Amino acid sequence: MKRIGLTLGDPAGVGPELALRIAADFAAKRDPSLVIVGSAAVLRRVARQLSLAVPRVVDAEQLSVHSHGVVVLDIDTLDAEVVEPGVWSRATGAASYAWVRHAIELALAGELDAVVTGPIQKEAWHAAGIAFPGHTELIAEMTGARDVRMMLTSDVISCVLATIHIPHAEVATRLTREDVWESIRLGAEAMRRRLGCEPRVTVCGLNPHAGEHGLFSHGEEERVILPAIEQALRLGMTVRGPVAPDTAFVPAMRQATDLYVCMYHDQGLIPLKALAFDDAVNVTLGSNIVRTSVDHGTAMDIAWQGIAKVSSLRAACEMAVDLAS
Amino acid sequence: MKRIGLTLGDPAGVGPELALRIAADFAAKRDPSLVIVGSAAVLRRVARQLSLAVPRVVDAEQLSVHSHGVVVLDIDTLDAEVVEPGVWSRATGAASYAWVRHAIELALAGELDAVVTGPIQKEAWHAAGIAFPGHTELIAEMTGARDVRMMLTSDVISCVLATIHIPHAEVATRLTREDVWESIRLGAEAMRRRLGCEPRVTVCGLNPHAGEHGLFSHGEEERVILPAIEQALRLGMTVRGPVAPDTAFVPAMRQATDLYVCMYHDQGLIPLKALAFDDAVNVTLGSNIVRTSVDHGTAMDIAWQGIAKVSSLRAACEMAVDLAS
Repeated sequence: MKRIGLTLGDPAGVGPELALRIAADFAAKRDPSLVIVGSAAVLRRVARQLSLAVPRVVDAEQLSVHSHGVVVLDIDTLDAEVVEPGVWSRATGAASYAWVRHAIELALAGELDAVVTGPIQKEAWHAAGIAFPGHTELIAEMTGARDVRMMLTSDVISCVLATIHIPHAEVATRLTREDVWESIRLGAEAMRRRLGCEPRVTVCGLNPHAGEHGLFSHGEEERVILPAIEQALRLGMTVRGPVAPDTAFVPAMRQATDLYVCMYHDQGLIPLKALAFDDAVNVTLGSNIVRTSVDHGTAMDIAWQGIAKVSSLRAACEMAVDLAS
Repeated sequence: MKRIGLTLGDPAGVGPELALRIAADFAAKRDPSLVIVGSAAVLRRVARQLSLAVPRVVDAEQLSVHSHGVVVLDIDTLDAEVVEPGVWSRATGAASYAWVRHAIELALAGELDAVVTGPIQKEAWHAAGIAFPGHTELIAEMTGARDVRMMLTSDVISCVLATIHIPHAEVATRLTREDVWESIRLGAEAMRRRLGCEPRVTVCGLNPHAGEHGLFSHGEEERVILPAIEQALRLGMTVRGPVAPDTAFVPAMRQATDLYVCMYHDQGLIPLKALAFDDAVNVTLGSNIVRTSVDHGTAMDIAWQGIAKVSSLRAACEMAVDLAS
């Protein structure tokens, strides 16, 4: 039986209400079980306001004996009464950070088979003096992973990113053969597990028209991208490219592609969000724990109102179950 | 009454059959009239093969008296019998180039209100010793335009590009405030003419998250993009940005946007081709003639078979009529 952990995210955002709503999905089935990691007091306040039910609350000691169903693991690091819906603070940042750390530790200890993270407010982490810019970097540090990759996946399109949060001006010089190869390798491995068969991988070029034989490039397609593709082909993988980025995402190509390997943030996220905005899931690849996440933010403007859409979190939970070994 | 010119494009490609099919659209109405600029002998061969009708053929002298309906202006620079479907050559390149020049001259002389160009084979132009990489550059030269821009437009999404065929590594350093401003100005002008009202313009950032306040940028948003937006706002235009590129194209943003100003080729063409592949039209802005074009290539693999889709050429003709003064 699988056990999935779900962190609340920033308590002032939409994370708590989404957790309560997703709990109902899990309550209906025996496997997998769900552990919501966060503040029981915050959940009670949100539940009261929106007329929702709060699952059974346990502490760390009780957790191991409650091996099925839905429970709230209460990590009481926050005065729930001072949390204002829509207003993040140092305190909400510190709390959401503590919950993520706790969930990762449980996963490393084998108590959780996967971690799904609710949306955090990055500025709140920063205000609380936390040096990690986000979940991915924290997971890399805590799991000792050498190279983590971000994959965004949906029913329509899935992308793994060879570079992420770096300036446009630096992509061409910082992109390495290793970045491309690790993206192909880790992305294909995840998709193989998910699909149960060898995924068809399309690797995008970096330049317009994939460089048009060096006419619009500094040779990155030949020097950096192609060797990584050839390495994959030698291992028998189903990979093509480098494909002209603007034709890579036309309908016929999408039908022939299970996974896109994208050279930079917007090359993957522009088509992903244009085509699958509400249902995309963020998957961290390359660490020894399974972690998925919603693809949206804390939505502070509609927090605790009961109108946030649960579809992305539902998709993130389903993906976590699929990927959990 | 308006008169639209249509060049055949490469005679070995799908241009001739599309011209014959679009002629039927125009034949049904009195206004606008259509002048197909190309080889009558090639059109006769294609028409015979596909059981289509060839419009009345005229020479340059006869053209001015035939002011309505559909005619073929025969520019006989090619031995039609040696053209093989699907096989471009120096000869097909030279011919398609001559037809485009002729159409532009007619437009400059006021004989045509707009020019629609069929798909050329760029390698064939190159093989024929023609220095222009494509239509846009030829039009800039022949019309003496200071700054031409490429706009791609469809019912779903329209984009104007601040930079086009340059290596990814050079975009950040070559992109200027003037590029962004001219793109806003010329793009908005064209959309205003088309929509009959002030267009809502969304200007994309260059970097991931539009730079996240300099965290992932070299300051291009503040230094290059924002000043151009402020210039537009001072003139009373409806412009917002710089917007994070990956959220710029989500459904809600698309509904609130008539025109995207994109910083580089793939930032605009990836979402455009993902969302509106078959119906996009390429419009050249900034010269003193109206020119539109199909958004696809010569499709040599299916040339003269009668299966090429006419939707993009039809859209290009309709756009030319809309934009012609």
